[in-house]
Amino acid sequence: MPPAKVTWLAPVSRPTLVLRQDRARRNIRRMSRRLADAGVALRPHFKTHQSATIGQWFRDEGVTRITTSSVDMARYFADEGWRDITLAFPTNLRQLDELNRLAARVTLGLVADDDTVVHALSDALTSTVRLWIKVDAGYGRAGLPWQQTKAVTRLAGIVAGLPELTFAGLLAHAGHSYHARTTAEILRIHDETVERMTGLRHALQTQGQSCPTLSIGDTPCCSLATSFDGIDEVRPGNYVFYDLTQARLGACRDEDIAVAVACPVVGAYPDQRKVVLYGGAVHLSKEVLEDDTHGGVYGYLAHPTEHGWDPPDRRCPIVSLSQEHAVVAVAPDAPFHWRPGDIAMVLPVHSCLTADLHSSYLTPGQDAISRVS
Amino acid sequence: MPPAKVTWLAPVSRPTLVLRQDRARRNIRRMSRRLADAGVALRPHFKTHQSATIGQWFRDEGVTRITTSSVDMARYFADEGWRDITLAFPTNLRQLDELNRLAARVTLGLVADDDTVVHALSDALTSTVRLWIKVDAGYGRAGLPWQQTKAVTRLAGIVAGLPELTFAGLLAHAGHSYHARTTAEILRIHDETVERMTGLRHALQTQGQSCPTLSIGDTPCCSLATSFDGIDEVRPGNYVFYDLTQARLGACRDEDIAVAVACPVVGAYPDQRKVVLYGGAVHLSKEVLEDDTHGGVYGYLAHPTEHGWDPPDRRCPIVSLSQEHAVVAVAPDAPFHWRPGDIAMVLPVHSCLTADLHSSYLTPGQDAISRVS
Repeated sequence: MPPAKVTWLAPVSRPTLVLRQDRARRNIRRMSRRLADAGVALRPHFKTHQSATIGQWFRDEGVTRITTSSVDMARYFADEGWRDITLAFPTNLRQLDELNRLAARVTLGLVADDDTVVHALSDALTSTVRLWIKVDAGYGRAGLPWQQTKAVTRLAGIVAGLPELTFAGLLAHAGHSYHARTTAEILRIHDETVERMTGLRHALQTQGQSCPTLSIGDTPCCSLATSFDGIDEVRPGNYVFYDLTQARLGACRDEDIAVAVACPVVGAYPDQRKVVLYGGAVHLSKEVLEDDTHGGVYGYLAHPTEHGWDPPDRRCPIVSLSQEHAVVAVAPDAPFHWRPGDIAMVLPVHSCLTADLHSSYLTPGQDAISRVS
Repeated sequence: MPPAKVTWLAPVSRPTLVLRQDRARRNIRRMSRRLADAGVALRPHFKTHQSATIGQWFRDEGVTRITTSSVDMARYFADEGWRDITLAFPTNLRQLDELNRLAARVTLGLVADDDTVVHALSDALTSTVRLWIKVDAGYGRAGLPWQQTKAVTRLAGIVAGLPELTFAGLLAHAGHSYHARTTAEILRIHDETVERMTGLRHALQTQGQSCPTLSIGDTPCCSLATSFDGIDEVRPGNYVFYDLTQARLGACRDEDIAVAVACPVVGAYPDQRKVVLYGGAVHLSKEVLEDDTHGGVYGYLAHPTEHGWDPPDRRCPIVSLSQEHAVVAVAPDAPFHWRPGDIAMVLPVHSCLTADLHSSYLTPGQDAISRVS
């Protein structure tokens, strides 16, 4: 079907981030309920949406504690009245003054895995912060490797003895769940993470050290796992919007994806089965999704509808992406309706990165929603 | 050598785009001279820098005509006094009002490859614009395929007969030069592009149609080719900054790269030969460079110096990139000097995309330079 005239798209003249409020609210509510049922506390990561208005939707579901990945984001949400914020990013020694200003206003959680950092932090702090020891539970990015029990125990001892630091516990992020190929693999990563973290806590306790809290959490595991035994809190973030990567992982359905980028069609080549969009790397990000047919793709198209968009059509992938252009390869068995001047909706590969390239959300039939600027 | 204390880095607390003015000016000057020597006009693409101040450096070398890739960019430079602007992007029918406002102020060049678009444009225009027919000379992105002589001739005839449109000529972008593996391959692509474009002009002329100008140009070809016979103007843009991709192609040397991102070190793991930076996809972009050892990398590190940075160390690639983190794999034969609180300079894979993620340039020892906001 050629796209019908869609009222809310009338003002769209350039690549525009669109949010379906009903889907985001449903995603927020569903995760809150499933984690409440599982008996684990939720401290959602706000790096995905970075919006005061959307933050309020989490408040509506009872969320009071949040996670951010930068000082700037933490300050923005502190200004919006959030009073318990974990900055789940290795403490940056070049922002100590800013951290002090934040710690004077909110219950601040920080993350470290290095004794020189915790000493420097303790020396500089003028208010108490909760200090998490970052554990690398298998992802390989940051943190003390989970096998290094002695190093973790030693650092916990140092933290416990330093002024202005309260030892919060151990924190990990199983980001390797994003590289899983099956749902079973995600659940295996989850179980392994839980086992490694609870094992470390046991080791600390065996040495006579307390370990108040274990914090883990990524959207794939939190969307699929049912057991969080021994874990105190989780920090998923992406689930507010989900995206094509999460759909591929089985962590969401297509109809849970809450954001897309409205892109003007600027070239249509039916004989080449090709569409060119105004919408490039600076609007979508160059995050790539493995696709059996094309190797890597940068999004799939969907037709706009009166309230949002149709399901993504995987026969219409973006196969190359320049600064401002996207090239879509329309499969031979897909209808070719696109004409210059139409709007194509692009479902994002990674909604966190795509949203970060925009300063606001267009919501069909409602007011635009702003993001941190 | 461990990094010395570098005065200009003192205020850097978060990922910050740094520009070496001397290098950018030298790149601008060198390209202007080599193209003047080759007898071809230069209409540089301003999408890379998007800065009024840097635009002035081009003026200092005699540039009066420019290229942009969006209406917003064109308006920004029109506000800065530029009076001859080609918008080298397929005409977007959803921005006709904005195009009319621009066309009333400047000599505006637009690009199209579709008769419905040129008719719609002609119907809507209230001032004359120069209309380029976009030719796909081998890249495969947008434009009428160069082999379709009849389609090009036909569209040129339509354009010539429509009010408010002046036929400017044929325009192509050989973006496939970026996928070349050798300098010889770039030169082959250049020669092929020149041959295809001059052949098309000849075909037009044979049919009794004029083809005032041929415009091509990308940074690899313009940096390496010496002959532009039959071509009237070129539109390279990236050369103002260059980057790791251009260095890989042989289009520049490491010491020509004029931008880098200063990133705080937030994790150092000598036993794992790993460094973690505050600097992620939202600061660098996820543009990837093929690397023989690591598959794909997102940048190489360099140590900061009193006036900029040392040459990039290809033994220190960014091997994974999250929203805010970069993970650097330090080769066994590279010294491991990095400590939390240091600054590492990240040389970008694709400077256009990296610069687009920042709102200003820090210039060592000089005032910051703003970009289009």
